[in-house]
Amino acid sequence: MPLRPNRPLPLATPAGVEVLTRILTQGPIPRVEIARRTGLSQAAVTKAVAPLIEAGFVTDQPVAVPVDDVGRVELGIGRPVSPLTVVPDSISVIGLKVTPTDLIGVTTDFRAGIRAVRHQQVTDTSAESVIKRLAELAKELIETLDDPADPAGPLIGIGVAVSGDVDALHGVVRDSPFMGWRDVPLAALLSEQLKVPVVVSNDVRALTVAEHWFGVGVDADSFAVVTIGSGVGCGLYINGEVVSGAHGVSGELGHLPLAPGELVCTCGRRGCVETVASSDAILARVRETTGQPDLDLSGAIELAHDGDEHAREAFDRAGEVIGSALAAMVNLVGPELVVIAGEGVADYDLYDQRMRQAFADHAFGAAGDCRLMLRSHTFDDWARGAAATVIRSYVRGEPPLTR
Amino acid sequence: MPLRPNRPLPLATPAGVEVLTRILTQGPIPRVEIARRTGLSQAAVTKAVAPLIEAGFVTDQPVAVPVDDVGRVELGIGRPVSPLTVVPDSISVIGLKVTPTDLIGVTTDFRAGIRAVRHQQVTDTSAESVIKRLAELAKELIETLDDPADPAGPLIGIGVAVSGDVDALHGVVRDSPFMGWRDVPLAALLSEQLKVPVVVSNDVRALTVAEHWFGVGVDADSFAVVTIGSGVGCGLYINGEVVSGAHGVSGELGHLPLAPGELVCTCGRRGCVETVASSDAILARVRETTGQPDLDLSGAIELAHDGDEHAREAFDRAGEVIGSALAAMVNLVGPELVVIAGEGVADYDLYDQRMRQAFADHAFGAAGDCRLMLRSHTFDDWARGAAATVIRSYVRGEPPLTR
Repeated sequence: MPLRPNRPLPLATPAGVEVLTRILTQGPIPRVEIARRTGLSQAAVTKAVAPLIEAGFVTDQPVAVPVDDVGRVELGIGRPVSPLTVVPDSISVIGLKVTPTDLIGVTTDFRAGIRAVRHQQVTDTSAESVIKRLAELAKELIETLDDPADPAGPLIGIGVAVSGDVDALHGVVRDSPFMGWRDVPLAALLSEQLKVPVVVSNDVRALTVAEHWFGVGVDADSFAVVTIGSGVGCGLYINGEVVSGAHGVSGELGHLPLAPGELVCTCGRRGCVETVASSDAILARVRETTGQPDLDLSGAIELAHDGDEHAREAFDRAGEVIGSALAAMVNLVGPELVVIAGEGVADYDLYDQRMRQAFADHAFGAAGDCRLMLRSHTFDDWARGAAATVIRSYVRGEPPLTR
Repeated sequence: MPLRPNRPLPLATPAGVEVLTRILTQGPIPRVEIARRTGLSQAAVTKAVAPLIEAGFVTDQPVAVPVDDVGRVELGIGRPVSPLTVVPDSISVIGLKVTPTDLIGVTTDFRAGIRAVRHQQVTDTSAESVIKRLAELAKELIETLDDPADPAGPLIGIGVAVSGDVDALHGVVRDSPFMGWRDVPLAALLSEQLKVPVVVSNDVRALTVAEHWFGVGVDADSFAVVTIGSGVGCGLYINGEVVSGAHGVSGELGHLPLAPGELVCTCGRRGCVETVASSDAILARVRETTGQPDLDLSGAIELAHDGDEHAREAFDRAGEVIGSALAAMVNLVGPELVVIAGEGVADYDLYDQRMRQAFADHAFGAAGDCRLMLRSHTFDDWARGAAATVIRSYVRGEPPLTR
């Protein structure tokens, strides 16, 4: 399999990194526009771009992607524009998402475009077993890169997204309540088996990196990604960068103490948002109040859609605390845009009204003017987020993809 | 009085702004060290510095300030270092803080060092009356600049700090519950009277700007300033900049919905932190539970220090919700350092223990590893914060101090 040492990026300076980032996230984009947006001279832009074109990472030839209005400048009739884009298949990346029931894997190109998808079921959530299955899944995905009919670029690295407290710098899952993991050196164990650099991230952080470079972040000055489902999470993009937390923790919206103090969370703390708003918490509540201990989540959703009072109450309660949590978050950081995503969004109608009411009740002044955007969302998007973290580390020359 | 038009900053490029910012906030600092920290060439640094020295804003001559280890580099014996510093008295700034009972004003030099302090009592909190008194206070302070025995630099602008939802871009106080103001165009009204540019800011934001450029921010990669007193506020510094909020609101820690829902806040919302943690809320609680309706705050503090059960309970309740709010904030943004400041800190011992316990109970994983630092703090510091916002606008060429 073609590996990273074959594809070092010819980036000698911070300006080079900045230029490639613009081309990657805002391309197709003319050199003159990169100069304008970065404050660099046109000569400096040209100097940074030349080796990237030479090495095949960037092109100024027309590409199959339609050029839209974003990033275009008026240059007058007849003058050549030659906007720059990255060459999608100049590299390949693998992204993996870990859940207690499934492993989801994708291969992507340089622009985080998904090429192949593979899933595996999890039967044993021990770190040892999951890492073994992750390695198998990665090998399956690596095989897809060799398809002669659709050749992919060399693999530069593998990203893994896990929920919980993740030390991305050292590739260690410090505490993942959903997986029952503590201090698992995931990056070291997996890269040992696969001989490929591995980047481990908190899953919501990874999703936010993908939105920053390849999603809403291209147009919004600040945003939050709130995920609702088996957990409640939040990624933040503020002041030009994804918020990572001084000690690697941030965006733990599911663990704000906004729920009744007598409820104990999977994390062991009391009154966390997830004690009433996670899908497990909603299901447990519906089972309890309806007296149907064998109900599953889709059954609970069906009951609520049919108007069952007890089932509705559980979703109402979840909506109320999610709305309060959203208000707490916007009161603190004041983002321009809040993207609401995650598996739970499919049944969003069940708590939409209560959530919006609680948000309106508690959002302070102009903080409440942020746009709330609903985003339908699959598990493949989580895996793509993991791939995006690898692409970002590669472009920036960050560990473990240092130049 | 000497005004701003006499003192335009000779800064032609973003690099020039970056260089002056380093000298101002990290000086004394040698040119070679500025080059290293900014990534600029030494030639570019020298080019940016020359006109600043020429115009008297910066000097490479020894100054009265002792040169400490911060910013020094080893250059070998006998070689001249010539570290750069700003000339403190090359400009003057006025900072004003508005409260419902007092107006506090300071003059500062370029480095936000306080030169003179004046206070005025407020008897009428209407915007019209307060603006009139602010103008009088500013005139008093302007007179101090003309002291021939201690000549100050020309006045470049006036900063005003007000609590609540402030539109800093347009200089409008949109909603200040403490003052009872809504949509007051404070900057326009005051600069009309004084013929000086006026910068209006949220008070906690202003304090955070001062900490960013002239305080803890010089050494911390991210921090929060939490103020406890008549209100509970929070300023955030993340990803290289003070967080301002897309719509001008952020850091509203006092309005997170963490208190009992039956309590109504001065802002009109239910369950805000301030309903139990503001000094008025604490006093009201002690009056109610002790049956002493005429008690004042110092009386309530005395009762609590004497071990009165009812008084202790009110401070315990405040400490608990403040601790939960701190945990909510660090769970979301994960700062390296939390500075706790404000008038309330003087009686910090009364809620310290409960606050730390609630913080420990709800801080998620490594987010709880942030340092908590206590900072004694006077009203003059608030006014100095307002001055710092003017200095920052001046250096950056932002409205209303555009070049």
